[in-house]
Amino acid sequence: MFVIPLIQRKRDGGSLDEAEWRSLVLAYARGEVPDYQMAALLMAVVLRGLADHELAALTDAMCASGARLEFGPSVPPRIDKHSTGGVGDKVSLVLAPLVASVGVAVPMISGRGLGHTGGTLDKLQSIPGFRVDLTLAEARLQVERLGVAMLGQTDEIAPADRKLYALRDATGTVEAIPLMAASIMSKKLAEGLDGLVLDIKRGSGAFLPDLQDGLSLARTMVRLGEERRCPTVALVTAMDRPLGRSCGNALEVAESIAALRGDGPADLMEVVLQLGCEMVLLAGAERTRTAARARLEAAIASGSALEKLRAVIASQGGDHEVVDRPERLPRAPLVEEHLAVSGGYIETVEPRRIGEAVVAMGGGRQKMDDRVDPAVGVVLHVQPGMRIETGVPLATVHARDEHGLAVARAALGAAIVVTPDPPAPPLPLVSHRVTASGVAVLP
Amino acid sequence: MFVIPLIQRKRDGGSLDEAEWRSLVLAYARGEVPDYQMAALLMAVVLRGLADHELAALTDAMCASGARLEFGPSVPPRIDKHSTGGVGDKVSLVLAPLVASVGVAVPMISGRGLGHTGGTLDKLQSIPGFRVDLTLAEARLQVERLGVAMLGQTDEIAPADRKLYALRDATGTVEAIPLMAASIMSKKLAEGLDGLVLDIKRGSGAFLPDLQDGLSLARTMVRLGEERRCPTVALVTAMDRPLGRSCGNALEVAESIAALRGDGPADLMEVVLQLGCEMVLLAGAERTRTAARARLEAAIASGSALEKLRAVIASQGGDHEVVDRPERLPRAPLVEEHLAVSGGYIETVEPRRIGEAVVAMGGGRQKMDDRVDPAVGVVLHVQPGMRIETGVPLATVHARDEHGLAVARAALGAAIVVTPDPPAPPLPLVSHRVTASGVAVLP
Repeated sequence: MFVIPLIQRKRDGGSLDEAEWRSLVLAYARGEVPDYQMAALLMAVVLRGLADHELAALTDAMCASGARLEFGPSVPPRIDKHSTGGVGDKVSLVLAPLVASVGVAVPMISGRGLGHTGGTLDKLQSIPGFRVDLTLAEARLQVERLGVAMLGQTDEIAPADRKLYALRDATGTVEAIPLMAASIMSKKLAEGLDGLVLDIKRGSGAFLPDLQDGLSLARTMVRLGEERRCPTVALVTAMDRPLGRSCGNALEVAESIAALRGDGPADLMEVVLQLGCEMVLLAGAERTRTAARARLEAAIASGSALEKLRAVIASQGGDHEVVDRPERLPRAPLVEEHLAVSGGYIETVEPRRIGEAVVAMGGGRQKMDDRVDPAVGVVLHVQPGMRIETGVPLATVHARDEHGLAVARAALGAAIVVTPDPPAPPLPLVSHRVTASGVAVLP
Repeated sequence: MFVIPLIQRKRDGGSLDEAEWRSLVLAYARGEVPDYQMAALLMAVVLRGLADHELAALTDAMCASGARLEFGPSVPPRIDKHSTGGVGDKVSLVLAPLVASVGVAVPMISGRGLGHTGGTLDKLQSIPGFRVDLTLAEARLQVERLGVAMLGQTDEIAPADRKLYALRDATGTVEAIPLMAASIMSKKLAEGLDGLVLDIKRGSGAFLPDLQDGLSLARTMVRLGEERRCPTVALVTAMDRPLGRSCGNALEVAESIAALRGDGPADLMEVVLQLGCEMVLLAGAERTRTAARARLEAAIASGSALEKLRAVIASQGGDHEVVDRPERLPRAPLVEEHLAVSGGYIETVEPRRIGEAVVAMGGGRQKMDDRVDPAVGVVLHVQPGMRIETGVPLATVHARDEHGLAVARAALGAAIVVTPDPPAPPLPLVSHRVTASGVAVLP
């Protein structure tokens, strides 16, 4: 078996060449390399790292293990967005129809909730009837017709990555920047994109809380994209508190509909618009950030962005009437206000605890085959820095049962910290922009 | 699942406590921890190391995963030998019957080929009918009756180590001093020994080529043995060239029979006799090295050592006529001389390349469930320092097919280096002796 010497070489700090990575990854995807060998190699990669040429070879091999979305010349430039994941992060639900409504095509392949974070697919599936399991052929037709499709990773796209990701999840080899970069980019590069925007979360609720780790991941992915003719831009955004107000699948869909109607919370809208501007600029649809932003804001004001969401839902089999009547979304039977027991300033709204609580309430998976309860979650009424009085509602809990209420009460009690004095400001919402030419700190 | 946090902790440089090692190892032995998780943990151990308390806990847990050989008071002192493995290393096949023939009991539990090295069990199984799968009850009875048994690690002895050893072999996690020490000592401590002699190989064909690594392994195992009331002595021997002439399972059995008949190559006999002296001394069967050596030499000269081998083969179901007629051993269909293309001095006979070639020819395992071809291998006719003429045979290849011949030709061509000038001498055959009181350099 050719694998053992490769493992040994990586273990000893050496590197594998392009042909070796390609053979290894394709053989693994075909089931010809056992999981235990790949697990040992992955741990060696975590501890020894990957040289640049290895990272490129691994990414290309995972991409080559499956099919690519191909578009005809009449389709406008395709731009996608990827987030490293957060709590309350419903950006994709707002951004994809918004950007598509201004003439940029968005073939968006998203994931499920992971750990304490939610996933776009789980959120979409809280819309009754919504199908995320489009084939690539269906996705291509819908993008040609509507300019946007929102689907899950099919068996067709980067099957090697799919298998590797499940193995990493079970072997303590998730937290490694080159493996994260290769996994994300192998899928995105299969989407036939003309550009990619990355939302790199930082802060306590992010998978990579540390800014330097986030920047390292961003630089790695930007380089991988650029080298493969997919211009890539990354923004670093704050995940030291949840984004927006709602955390939980149907609650986040409702907030996204409100956002497309012009009623979104300021922090969510700012992140959506900044990422959207990058997408519009990458597509060449506008030349300046000011013009791009104005165009996006106009699409919200005119209702065309919301109409695009309606069209996507209808096209993918969902109940598009939720756009006008969000109360048709699944609703939890128990609703309870969580009140402030003392007055003062909100110091922290800890996203990880809230995300874990939503999972524990049934709104995410603790095991791979758990069913997700679309209705449960929390809606926050406060943000770090706000001044509050004793007894005001800090959050509204939407629970399936008493256990869910108890879980949410405990989590909110620990997550929302009130202090008598004004706290230090939270992280800036959008702080860095990473491109092929370097890292810029945003004003 | 409790394993992932343990993998993550080890990956990040932390340590597991005694209870965690014990739970993990016992759960793995029961099949409750998948191979891929253990493979990731093993690679983290290779790259991060084990603290002393972890090494002791791992060793004891592997030992405790199974039964112990127990002997009555009438059985003579039991001494075993263990080698860290080399190419052409058939010492056990000669030493066990030899030492038993002078009245020292040898309950020898051996292993399979590992990496580029051969294994005693694979060699024994090239004798038609030879059973290495004795139960502990059978082994105990045979030791009581014959003074020696040669068996594989049964499911009874350290089953956790058995499983781990196979996994390490397939995942590039063999070369790690603590894992090697724990694996060896967990089995040896279950044999109910009164003493243990270790053959620590050094040089390019050893798992630990570097002398300091070998000494570190020796000291680690001597300490583990002493702390557990099993006096342990280690000799450091040369593995910068194969030991003896033959490399390959049946070929090595034939050479071992010749050795017990008094026709063994000098290097093999010297290693056998020096290890044998240590065993006789540990058993208290002689008081001086000179007397011990004389007694062993007499057992070969009288034929009693060879008769002991015959008795072992017969008792374990093998074709004991191979002792008189080694041609009854499996023979490869293709035999080819490998000739010198130039004259000069033999500078190196690189054991690792030769060992890898034997594996690639089918004489070892590339995957856990590969079948071993007992007949294939090479017989060397030269050693480092010898002067040769163009056209003389350097080795004889025994192959199953043309592919095997091609593999062997390429390996021998690279492994046997001829130079015009007399080369530097190879490593001394037996160079260091490690005991609880320290390391002695031998004259």
